[in-house]
Amino acid sequence: MSIQPKNAAFNHKKYQPFAFAPKMTQRTWPDKTITKAPIWTSVDLRDGNQALIEPMSIEQKMRFFDLLVQVGFKEIEIGFPSAAQVEYDFTRKLIEGGHVPDDVTLQVLVQAREHLIRRTFESLKGAKRAIVHVYNSTSKVQREKVYQKDYDDIIAIAVEGATLLRDLAKEYPETEWIFEYSPESFSQTEVDFSVKICDEVCKVWRPDLGQKVIFNLPSTVESSTPNIYADQIEYFCQNLPMREHVIVSLHTHNDRGCAVAASELGLMAGADRIEGTLFGNGERTGNMDIMVMAMNMYSQGVDPQLDFSNMSEIAQVVSECNQLPIHPRHPYVGELVFTAFSGSHQDAIKKSLDYNEQNAEATQGLWDVAYLPIDPAHIGRGYQDVVRINSQSGKGGVAYILQRDFGFHLPRWTQIDFSRVIQQEAESRQTELTSDDVISVFEDTYLNQSTLALQDYEIKNTAGSVSFSGSVRMGDDIIDVVGNGNGPLSAFINAISAKLNKNIHVINYAEHALTVESQSPLTQNNSDANAVAYLQLNIEGEIYSGIGTCSSTVSAMLKAALSALAQAQIADTEHH
Amino acid sequence: MSIQPKNAAFNHKKYQPFAFAPKMTQRTWPDKTITKAPIWTSVDLRDGNQALIEPMSIEQKMRFFDLLVQVGFKEIEIGFPSAAQVEYDFTRKLIEGGHVPDDVTLQVLVQAREHLIRRTFESLKGAKRAIVHVYNSTSKVQREKVYQKDYDDIIAIAVEGATLLRDLAKEYPETEWIFEYSPESFSQTEVDFSVKICDEVCKVWRPDLGQKVIFNLPSTVESSTPNIYADQIEYFCQNLPMREHVIVSLHTHNDRGCAVAASELGLMAGADRIEGTLFGNGERTGNMDIMVMAMNMYSQGVDPQLDFSNMSEIAQVVSECNQLPIHPRHPYVGELVFTAFSGSHQDAIKKSLDYNEQNAEATQGLWDVAYLPIDPAHIGRGYQDVVRINSQSGKGGVAYILQRDFGFHLPRWTQIDFSRVIQQEAESRQTELTSDDVISVFEDTYLNQSTLALQDYEIKNTAGSVSFSGSVRMGDDIIDVVGNGNGPLSAFINAISAKLNKNIHVINYAEHALTVESQSPLTQNNSDANAVAYLQLNIEGEIYSGIGTCSSTVSAMLKAALSALAQAQIADTEHH
Repeated sequence: MSIQPKNAAFNHKKYQPFAFAPKMTQRTWPDKTITKAPIWTSVDLRDGNQALIEPMSIEQKMRFFDLLVQVGFKEIEIGFPSAAQVEYDFTRKLIEGGHVPDDVTLQVLVQAREHLIRRTFESLKGAKRAIVHVYNSTSKVQREKVYQKDYDDIIAIAVEGATLLRDLAKEYPETEWIFEYSPESFSQTEVDFSVKICDEVCKVWRPDLGQKVIFNLPSTVESSTPNIYADQIEYFCQNLPMREHVIVSLHTHNDRGCAVAASELGLMAGADRIEGTLFGNGERTGNMDIMVMAMNMYSQGVDPQLDFSNMSEIAQVVSECNQLPIHPRHPYVGELVFTAFSGSHQDAIKKSLDYNEQNAEATQGLWDVAYLPIDPAHIGRGYQDVVRINSQSGKGGVAYILQRDFGFHLPRWTQIDFSRVIQQEAESRQTELTSDDVISVFEDTYLNQSTLALQDYEIKNTAGSVSFSGSVRMGDDIIDVVGNGNGPLSAFINAISAKLNKNIHVINYAEHALTVESQSPLTQNNSDANAVAYLQLNIEGEIYSGIGTCSSTVSAMLKAALSALAQAQIADTEHH
Repeated sequence: MSIQPKNAAFNHKKYQPFAFAPKMTQRTWPDKTITKAPIWTSVDLRDGNQALIEPMSIEQKMRFFDLLVQVGFKEIEIGFPSAAQVEYDFTRKLIEGGHVPDDVTLQVLVQAREHLIRRTFESLKGAKRAIVHVYNSTSKVQREKVYQKDYDDIIAIAVEGATLLRDLAKEYPETEWIFEYSPESFSQTEVDFSVKICDEVCKVWRPDLGQKVIFNLPSTVESSTPNIYADQIEYFCQNLPMREHVIVSLHTHNDRGCAVAASELGLMAGADRIEGTLFGNGERTGNMDIMVMAMNMYSQGVDPQLDFSNMSEIAQVVSECNQLPIHPRHPYVGELVFTAFSGSHQDAIKKSLDYNEQNAEATQGLWDVAYLPIDPAHIGRGYQDVVRINSQSGKGGVAYILQRDFGFHLPRWTQIDFSRVIQQEAESRQTELTSDDVISVFEDTYLNQSTLALQDYEIKNTAGSVSFSGSVRMGDDIIDVVGNGNGPLSAFINAISAKLNKNIHVINYAEHALTVESQSPLTQNNSDANAVAYLQLNIEGEIYSGIGTCSSTVSAMLKAALSALAQAQIADTEHH
């Protein structure tokens, strides 16, 4: 049964299945993996720029160009100099100003039209090395509806453009020229025709005489699943006569949300070179995101040959020049992508990190952490980004915050107790809790109780038996207590237990020094409070956790006992 | 040569190649295509919600639930009722309030732990039909680092959970129960182990006795190219003993930017069902975007069984409930995805639309337009979104604006002339031009020139020869002109030519009625201005275009001539 759409225009029958999948007799790419970086070409300053609401100024283009050089691009398409004066001027400025490093090659785009090609060569005068990227449209819809030309007409446009490139290059011998041809809208072109037109261009450019040429195969509009694009690339590579003299380049767009997948599978299918942009800017849904593809390689041990170690600075330059936001869930760069809100995720991250730390030799420093594909620190992000606390969080995340920011290593049973408190708090506030919120709730729950307070006390250890004698403030009263036990804690518990006539015994305890630089308001004000004790008591059959801090390890433990007793409202019971 | 990163921590050697690709002896998915919609399951209210900075309130969850029902989801994962009170309460509210349509099945998630499973069944009491989705982690990193358990321990957790589901279901016989099991982090689990653990669960649930079960195979963290995920799915389907009694479900995340590709290829590899969220919300980089996958099917003639005809309303509800933005380049829904800034793209769109209109019968109303994968009107977007004008635009876009908004059908030679004017304007302003900006520049350039004005005139047609006699205001002077020609225009041109002693002749002209509801300030003020004439003159060897509007077709043409003469600054020449 079909859904009845609210808008009657919604009708899948207006569309047809993809018609340009090649028949594959041999398909090898699904058994390949990516083991080395391709030649990367940034088209941010051309394909990216032309899709901006406000195209970049020359100053912005210069800033972006410098960034691309820093990231490590060796081929940069800088514009369409024959199409607009600003593009021409920027090209001249780069060349005349000496802004192009020796190992970086400028690339410019031009349609296969004579006056535009002539203007393009003028714009590049004096360049050390340049790629002239010429194209014409080859797809069925472009041939039939836009140009109303047949196959031979379309080939003639390409061949005439290629011939003019070859001839004009000789007029500017001071530049090392590289030729690139795109059968634009390749992915919606019958692939045999793409092979044919590229072969005709080969016959003009004669890469077999020594200088390789670039054939760039765009999915100008993404219009199939990415495996079909990979088939098209492998078919093209299998059938192009002069394949060994050609650099096969990919240029994918993201209309179906699969541009990165298409380029990855296309690379496995035999391509050598990838065109794309940083964070995927470009016409409509954008170009393939080179950062994501490079970081995907990085995350599996392949040298991406691009440096994204300073991701935040890169993100700032790109978003300021493009005047477009970066989505919080954008892979590797979004604000939320190294964040885990879910309790079980937080728990697993904490355990993986702990495991790696405790097994540093066995794990050889390799990164392998549940829910975190890469170490955020590698790209300049902090661990503090990892865990955020809301009502969906569990004990692991809360424990992580308390450990990282405040130095408390909560035992598991305390984590469970406190995560319930935090969850109720987050539910009632209906917002995320900050690190300061967490410590504040922690202190209010365990440390700052005011009903019970330890006063002066004396502990005597006589022949293995310990006696406690001292006083406790309970509400407004000061009460003396006396008891014996195996140690100070059991003596104190026995003393309290006898005084209140309650059945109290210790289930669990733990203690450690507060060693990290603590941000806790409490420990800041008590700089000598460097011991923390965790205690779990069974009080009349119910379980309560308590925590105490003090410069004295014994006092910390006794305060932890009072903290647990306070939660059992033992003082209230006593006084009412 | 490796790049030397600025941040020394950036080091690909900290990572290893993906280790969980199955060895494929038979691989059929690359030859498959998607021809029908899968079973869709929204996890917006669970996996999406748990990843929000501020999880939804019950009111927001209710609004989102109603939206999901409207879009056409028949299976909706509403939360993790045993994990938080708010999740439990929402489940109860849906059931007790009668908010669940008869053909919609609630789904809830729960870990394979006894007290959580018991609480989960309580939360669903009274539901007509419900999917209890139980999971435990199976991946190598989770087994070894998080749980420190072996294969058998992990299987035991799953089997105990499955057993409890089976037994508890009998205690609530009023509900039709469906069981779902996820080997969580399936994609990072050895696939033979995934088969094994699911088979053990099968032996508890016995789907061969009639009630199918769901096995959901998450790429909880995306960690391979999407073809490998498809291999894992096909391998799983080939090797699971009770495959025919099982609904195989996919649940992909977007850490490598390929979640949609992974689900598409996984569906081709044999899956039956897809879990995901609207616009891809979810932990870290998000879940698979069901809207994009459904619209990808739609765009190739496959009924998606979901209704996205009112995309803008859907976008509003989702972004308000999630409190997350939608990126301007998000496929199908982003602000910029039906926009073409590039001149050649704009030109091709206009020509494709014109072709389809002129060949409506041959094209059978099928959508096939360069650079626009779908008709924006099908999802409630307007054509007015398509073309925007900046310095990267060409003649096609500008002509489209003038035609759509103001009724001017510029001939090609006028388009070229005016696009140069617009490009200069956009470059000097460094901003996008609105439709009003375009008409304003158009009027200033051609229609509102003040140097030359037509005064009274007389035209006589005598034996095939036409004579013009009248006067023209030139600057401050009124000048009488007389001439003969084949028609009024040539007579007028000859008259002017003789008077000024200039060599002037007509290259091209065109005229049409201004029929559309015009927004032009000019034509609004002159409601009788319903003819427009376009003229191209050669004036002393230079080419000028002029345009005139008038209620009289003759006057419009003569005014177009004066418009061209004004641009040649013929009056200035005369007077200086």
